[in-house]
Amino acid sequence: MSSSMSACGAEQGLITVDQALALILDNAQVLVAEQLTLDQALNRYLAEDVYSQINLPLFSQSAVDGYALCAPSTIEPKSSFELVGEIQAGHGSELQLKQGQAARIFTGAKIPVGTTTVARQEIVSVIDSSNIEITESLKAHSDIRDVGEEISIGELLASQGQQLSVGAIASLSMAGVQTVQVFQYPKVAVVITGDEVAVSVEDFASGKIFDANAPLIKAWFQQQSQQVEIFHVADTEHAVTALIQTLSQDYDLILTTGGVSVGDYDFIRPVTLALGFEQIFWKVKQKPGKPIFFATLARADHSACYLLGLPGNPAAVYMGMQIYTSTLLNALQGQKQPPNWFSAVLTHDLKMDARERFLRMSASFEQSVLKVKSLSKQQSHMLSNLMQANCLVRIPAGKSMFEGQIVQGIFIHS
Amino acid sequence: MSSSMSACGAEQGLITVDQALALILDNAQVLVAEQLTLDQALNRYLAEDVYSQINLPLFSQSAVDGYALCAPSTIEPKSSFELVGEIQAGHGSELQLKQGQAARIFTGAKIPVGTTTVARQEIVSVIDSSNIEITESLKAHSDIRDVGEEISIGELLASQGQQLSVGAIASLSMAGVQTVQVFQYPKVAVVITGDEVAVSVEDFASGKIFDANAPLIKAWFQQQSQQVEIFHVADTEHAVTALIQTLSQDYDLILTTGGVSVGDYDFIRPVTLALGFEQIFWKVKQKPGKPIFFATLARADHSACYLLGLPGNPAAVYMGMQIYTSTLLNALQGQKQPPNWFSAVLTHDLKMDARERFLRMSASFEQSVLKVKSLSKQQSHMLSNLMQANCLVRIPAGKSMFEGQIVQGIFIHS
Repeated sequence: MSSSMSACGAEQGLITVDQALALILDNAQVLVAEQLTLDQALNRYLAEDVYSQINLPLFSQSAVDGYALCAPSTIEPKSSFELVGEIQAGHGSELQLKQGQAARIFTGAKIPVGTTTVARQEIVSVIDSSNIEITESLKAHSDIRDVGEEISIGELLASQGQQLSVGAIASLSMAGVQTVQVFQYPKVAVVITGDEVAVSVEDFASGKIFDANAPLIKAWFQQQSQQVEIFHVADTEHAVTALIQTLSQDYDLILTTGGVSVGDYDFIRPVTLALGFEQIFWKVKQKPGKPIFFATLARADHSACYLLGLPGNPAAVYMGMQIYTSTLLNALQGQKQPPNWFSAVLTHDLKMDARERFLRMSASFEQSVLKVKSLSKQQSHMLSNLMQANCLVRIPAGKSMFEGQIVQGIFIHS
Repeated sequence: MSSSMSACGAEQGLITVDQALALILDNAQVLVAEQLTLDQALNRYLAEDVYSQINLPLFSQSAVDGYALCAPSTIEPKSSFELVGEIQAGHGSELQLKQGQAARIFTGAKIPVGTTTVARQEIVSVIDSSNIEITESLKAHSDIRDVGEEISIGELLASQGQQLSVGAIASLSMAGVQTVQVFQYPKVAVVITGDEVAVSVEDFASGKIFDANAPLIKAWFQQQSQQVEIFHVADTEHAVTALIQTLSQDYDLILTTGGVSVGDYDFIRPVTLALGFEQIFWKVKQKPGKPIFFATLARADHSACYLLGLPGNPAAVYMGMQIYTSTLLNALQGQKQPPNWFSAVLTHDLKMDARERFLRMSASFEQSVLKVKSLSKQQSHMLSNLMQANCLVRIPAGKSMFEGQIVQGIFIHS
């Protein structure tokens, strides 16, 4: 057994990371849906299937700048046509083409009635103001985008559970969708515990440390385009009780940092249980973040308040946000899936540890193979290697790992 | 030559994607720096090296809940100590331990003067209120985090050019960094051209289409935690001239959609050149997005205004944002690097095309190997496959591609 296998890691009866994630997914009650305009809905999850109210394209249109032609079949080189008008994109037209007639047309413009094909301007010679000649042979129905060719009225555009990425927003916009039913985003309060955490520069004194956890969590939510409220609380049972009790009435999720271990000033768990929360799990066989705590409170209106208690070490908070908080936030929005792990090749050996570890690593592709390399300074009170890390990698418990073995992880930048 | 090799793709003299990216990197003049508080600086790039003003840890501290001890060397089981006080995390203490003395201590609390080692509470028996016994042997200097063990005063924390990710913000916060010099984020105006684009539902009429481009670009910037101003302009030379002239005085970057091809109503390029912009490139041998246009205006104050003209098809806009706009925005902030391409295995054959293509694909890991699969509906006026796509993949020009070959791409979700 290696020296890195600490005694506390050998603690019996702890659940595994996968068991903890499954308990989060099992216990998260999906929030209600709300109607939002599409431009408010970035990154939300659809609460409904969305069907198209229109055809896409909405009308048959030219795919190029050129000439709409009316001809019986394939057009031979040097065929000439009478030019009878012009149709600009976005402008309606009453024009009807008869055999032998042409209309100047632009990309995206509605083709006139009678059009059999479109000639791109590169193969057209303008003879005079009312006559043109086609310089190459041209098939029927060239460069026409047909009405409904991409999407027909009534066709499924997007399914319940679909996340509204930038591309999804653009795609629904193109189909004329103005509003969508999405799952509410959980209302989140963040509680920072630990008398050692300086709340501000002015608060700094002997024995205090600068706070990494509030800036970390605030930036993490900002990255998701979400805001959260942050509260600092003193390490007294009274203060913790008063704050959690108040927050549990108004928020869907209370995220806490610190105060979940077995120290004399670790009040989050006892206070939460005294307030009527039910413990879902406490302590996971992992490093960092072993004392993580998850509980739920059933409220009178049948809604629930969840409390996810992250250990106070910043590395545990960082891992906890990426792995557990993200899984819980998604589950509350109807996405009951564990993290989408990549698989990658380990580029070096790693000593055994009694607990599953989440190591901050650097990942890069070599000829389509993702390779990961661990960084130094992995201890739970250290964060500086996040300057170089681009992934968190899971290293199984109780196994020596070797170069070339496959491990799972998630990307943490992008 | 396959039938998918369209005639317009064979146009001579077009530059390649890599040449276009290199021209953007060569011509982007880095913006000046500004001082921001750390919580405003998410995703910005550092304009300075940051050195630590403090040690991390700031003071020698306990790594566990337990007892600080003063003992001459390794402690044998059943050694007893006199308990002389308690030190809570975040609270200063004047306590000094003498040989044979112990102090109750908690994780993160400053160890008292005289401490030689820390016993985690799991190996301590409390005899009475002033005596404890150690139940296992314990080495000197156990469970002590030494001052400066992670970072020393004056050590480099982060380098110029480092992007301030969530982890970087947390790491700098922990080192007490309050403000940072970062490169300014470009002030961006977006100009949507095309009389066919309905600005609102009310504006909808025959020949008009719903706008995908403004919602797409707005959401894209929102995803970067940035806001942009969006302008719609009519397809007249006068209107385009007036708007571009005004914007070119106030904005670092004008992004336009549409109006950059060779149609009679494509005013962006001639107007821009008439206003004194210098063309850096026009037309890239790619699909979608061939007529992309990039120009720069030198202003009297030696600053520059850049205009990136994206073709109006939404697929070209989407690709243009992911590949060209992101490269330009990063370059203006000092990051002169092309996109960070992954490499992946193609899971099927693809026909040759005269132009390099960017295909919307679905990527997944199989035993550490990234595999990509093309989606249907790739035409430049179609976006609906963005519901399934999670990457954009580059397919080289003029080559038939086969299953198993390695291609480059970027992830588009995360």
